[in-house]
Amino acid sequence: MLPLSFGGIAKPFSGRISVKCEYTIPLRTTINNPSDSMASPKWAQKTVTLPPQRRGCHLVTSKIMKEIGQEMSGFKCGLAHFFLQHTSASLTINENYDSDVRDDTETFLSRVVPEGTSAPWKHTLEGPDDMPAHIKSSMFGCNLTIPITDGKLNMGTWQGLWLCEHRDSATPRRIVITLNGI
Amino acid sequence: MLPLSFGGIAKPFSGRISVKCEYTIPLRTTINNPSDSMASPKWAQKTVTLPPQRRGCHLVTSKIMKEIGQEMSGFKCGLAHFFLQHTSASLTINENYDSDVRDDTETFLSRVVPEGTSAPWKHTLEGPDDMPAHIKSSMFGCNLTIPITDGKLNMGTWQGLWLCEHRDSATPRRIVITLNGI
Amino acid sequence: MLPLSFGGIAKPFSGRISVKCEYTIPLRTTINNPSDSMASPKWAQKTVTLPPQRRGCHLVTSKIMKEIGQEMSGFKCGLAHFFLQHTSASLTINENYDSDVRDDTETFLSRVVPEGTSAPWKHTLEGPDDMPAHIKSSMFGCNLTIPITDGKLNMGTWQGLWLCEHRDSATPRRIVITLNGI
Repeated sequence: MLPLSFGGIAKPFSGRISVKCEYTIPLRTTINNPSDSMASPKWAQKTVTLPPQRRGCHLVTSKIMKEIGQEMSGFKCGLAHFFLQHTSASLTINENYDSDVRDDTETFLSRVVPEGTSAPWKHTLEGPDDMPAHIKSSMFGCNLTIPITDGKLNMGTWQGLWLCEHRDSATPRRIVITLNGI
Repeated sequence: MLPLSFGGIAKPFSGRISVKCEYTIPLRTTINNPSDSMASPKWAQKTVTLPPQRRGCHLVTSKIMKEIGQEMSGFKCGLAHFFLQHTSASLTINENYDSDVRDDTETFLSRVVPEGTSAPWKHTLEGPDDMPAHIKSSMFGCNLTIPITDGKLNMGTWQGLWLCEHRDSATPRRIVITLNGI
Repeated sequence: MLPLSFGGIAKPFSGRISVKCEYTIPLRTTINNPSDSMASPKWAQKTVTLPPQRRGCHLVTSKIMKEIGQEMSGFKCGLAHFFLQHTSASLTINENYDSDVRDDTETFLSRVVPEGTSAPWKHTLEGPDDMPAHIKSSMFGCNLTIPITDGKLNMGTWQGLWLCEHRDSATPRRIVITLNGI
């Protein structure tokens, strides 16, 4: 009766594709049938503030999931959007196991963007690490979108969410998280 | 009566989180209760063309908001997606106050990507700045998603939307803007 | 009768803007009026696995569209999200015509990120190309969002979807694709 094939296989695809969800709002049925209510489109939005971190790359997946895991569990299929409200730090997805990868990434960033007295920057009032931090922020970006499948972030086995702090001085960092899905 | 806690606090979180919105479509109630109609899921999509800019980084937040501000004001919670339809320019979010930051970023880009007769590029027919422009476009990206909260882009105090023009020759640049939310 | 102006011009804009779609869910009308059913919000999500590619940048637009084109044709307005589930490859949008652009981009990446015995990396167990691959993955990113308009990806004339393989050893790469729209 419902125009809903949630979680099912909609049509015969090749072996390389798996349909995770396909959905059209089951109008007029949600309220009378509480078991379908989870399938209505939902939005949730929160601001999470992470405590100050030292300069470098930090794995923050578990910290973030601790804050939004409960809300996310209500989404069968959707998208999670992460937006860092700063211009001298960045968000990226990378390896979640060996901390050497995070250290090496910081090493790369510090090498590719000149810093100190020989650097060509005009914007220097806030310290030698300030202008390099702005550049690194645009290189790695401040916004990420990750698929949600069956109530969880659908990342690869070795992927994690990194907060990259590009300033020497530690400050809290705010992330606006928006969940949208069914 | 409504399954709607828009703008409210859904459950007791720690002090570090603020719930901005949580929403499930109030089926069967919207039409009878016009005051709720703003909470129905909405989509809007426009193509905005920015006039030619010189090579470098340009703050375009106010130009963009002039074009989409009225539509965005109807969204209490959602996402704004910006897509630049070009491969030799980029969109990024960075500092919105000191123009030196934009000049320094252009300085960095021109230093990190080789240009001119000593550069190793095969793709040179369209001029010495063409292949470097393609690379810079992928470094900074052509697509951004920004949260919408209470009808406005929910960026940090010092964040602004930049169009980075990587070509020496000026051409108009098209941005497809998609708004989705409640 | 419907609060629906799909595909229409909502208000008089300047010549630089074209309204592609504007939409509010036509509650209570969809089921009785089958011709409107396509306008209900929809979600679709699939995992597509691309076969192993050699190190370098590869244009994969047609391969991807072959897998999702049929589903996408049902969306008049929306967003397509692409998420690569790996940390040593990346997704980006760039030039779709001259393969020299892809070769030159690989040349740039290999030059800007040091590799081999003189490189400063601690993370070396998996080979000399492993740590550089992680860095390149964050430089170009693993997630992209592209607008959907009239059932198609609304990219510019010269834009295409690239899979950049940063490892020397070939492995299949998984992309989670999420479609959302009306």
